[in-house]
Amino acid sequence: MIDICLAGTGGMMPLKNRWLTTCYSEVQGNGILIDCGEGTQIALAQADINTNRINTLLITHFHADHISGFPGLMLSLKNFQKTSPLYVFCPPGGKEIIKNLSCICDDLPFKIFIDELPPDRFFSFESPGQKDFVIISAPMRHTKKCLAYRLTLNRKPVFNPEKAKELNIPLQYWKVLHRGEDVEFDGKIFTTDMVTDGERNPLTYTYATDTRPNDNLIELAEKSDLFICEGMYGDDENVEDLRKKGHSNFIDAAMAAKKADVKELWLTHFSPAMPNPYVYKDSIRKIFQNTKIPKDGFKKTL
Amino acid sequence: MIDICLAGTGGMMPLKNRWLTTCYSEVQGNGILIDCGEGTQIALAQADINTNRINTLLITHFHADHISGFPGLMLSLKNFQKTSPLYVFCPPGGKEIIKNLSCICDDLPFKIFIDELPPDRFFSFESPGQKDFVIISAPMRHTKKCLAYRLTLNRKPVFNPEKAKELNIPLQYWKVLHRGEDVEFDGKIFTTDMVTDGERNPLTYTYATDTRPNDNLIELAEKSDLFICEGMYGDDENVEDLRKKGHSNFIDAAMAAKKADVKELWLTHFSPAMPNPYVYKDSIRKIFQNTKIPKDGFKKTL
Repeated sequence: MIDICLAGTGGMMPLKNRWLTTCYSEVQGNGILIDCGEGTQIALAQADINTNRINTLLITHFHADHISGFPGLMLSLKNFQKTSPLYVFCPPGGKEIIKNLSCICDDLPFKIFIDELPPDRFFSFESPGQKDFVIISAPMRHTKKCLAYRLTLNRKPVFNPEKAKELNIPLQYWKVLHRGEDVEFDGKIFTTDMVTDGERNPLTYTYATDTRPNDNLIELAEKSDLFICEGMYGDDENVEDLRKKGHSNFIDAAMAAKKADVKELWLTHFSPAMPNPYVYKDSIRKIFQNTKIPKDGFKKTL
Repeated sequence: MIDICLAGTGGMMPLKNRWLTTCYSEVQGNGILIDCGEGTQIALAQADINTNRINTLLITHFHADHISGFPGLMLSLKNFQKTSPLYVFCPPGGKEIIKNLSCICDDLPFKIFIDELPPDRFFSFESPGQKDFVIISAPMRHTKKCLAYRLTLNRKPVFNPEKAKELNIPLQYWKVLHRGEDVEFDGKIFTTDMVTDGERNPLTYTYATDTRPNDNLIELAEKSDLFICEGMYGDDENVEDLRKKGHSNFIDAAMAAKKADVKELWLTHFSPAMPNPYVYKDSIRKIFQNTKIPKDGFKKTL
């Protein structure tokens, strides 16, 4: 199960009624935040997110609207007495930028570990503290080095206690078998498949913002249960200027969702010049039917 | 005339319904902002402040809740196509900190000039572009180098056109005389006092936050028309801990207002642990009658 909350949906500049785009997800009490623009800590509070659970921060790129909330969030985590480490994954250059921004964060009671990810290829790594939760980063096409992320929870098959009872397997071995290890007792070897009910599909969502349409995006998002994608504007007006600045609009996102054959699309990173993105709902659903145009704090559990 | 807006009133951490303390004032179209914590640009927008008019930023000290909104504000000023310089005045160390925070502000179309003010004595300087608006900084007592500010608008005497007409002074000399320069024509010398109606009192407000009670504060605030002062808590509970952390409460602020003989006191920098500062209104007015406990966006024109 992955709880996902798109706490903010804005691009460039926070508005009175729209936070900068930021996405929180939680798996078994471990929180992963993607991007952290100004006001993220308030956006999370408004969405009733317990920020203290954040152990991982993924940064798409280092434009201010995706990172300027970092010092404030750190100070709040300090006030909430976080002591466990924070793991940051980001494009190259991030170590220095985060060091710079941390100059106003005194005496943090937790460690920050920063990994700069390859800017030019797909890269896969385990989510800290959660080895069945795998993250893949992929290079996007923006005016700065920019990464999109695909997060996958590989789920164990469902344990069937009836099967275990039938085989007279003692209780203390059930967990061991469920996590995939063989067990030997009474001279016999027992394997996971003997006490489970087959495979379960992994759960996957992909988050991409600040990019021109590109093939990496389609490949990364392929068959995601949820695809959260930038849509700066609702239509193709000024599309040349948009491309020059390294962005996508609703149509680009919907086309990518269709090509990648995802189950559901959420749009985000709305331009401050677009006060009402919801008017494009019908037109965009003609391209990709299961499209949502979320408001800040929109939630779903995969 | 000085327009003053206390756009935010919070300390430490922005809340869902309370911005971090920040004060905007405007004199003849020149905007001065004091402190710039996370979300300041949104707080200003909510208070209908035209941020593009900000030409001066005064920083009390470099804890994150007083400066973390800086990169976001810069990006927004860029989006609003500001081209005129921004003058920053701050405690020592500010040049490096602002340089660090600016690492996520690319290609700003305006210059930033930074003056580090003396941390150990009163210091007076003219407000940029406004020589009749004088700012005095004074060292406070916090856990970091911290300054409070007194801002004074020295007003010209009121020009009396009847007097000028009676003396047959040509129209082109009226402005010259009003700004205090002598004029010679027809073999006679004319002086300002001949065409004005006496002196006007200067207008003064003082802003102080994150400090233990101290004598500098009383001296700085003396006879201010408005005194905006930190009050972390409403009463004396936990006062020792408060002092250790370098803060004042409502009682300290009201006592300072009384000693400094100011006209009006506004409290600010409320602790996130104090959701309802307004319950202390009656008790605090017993110490200093003309006390306001403002909500974000509270305004006054001096």
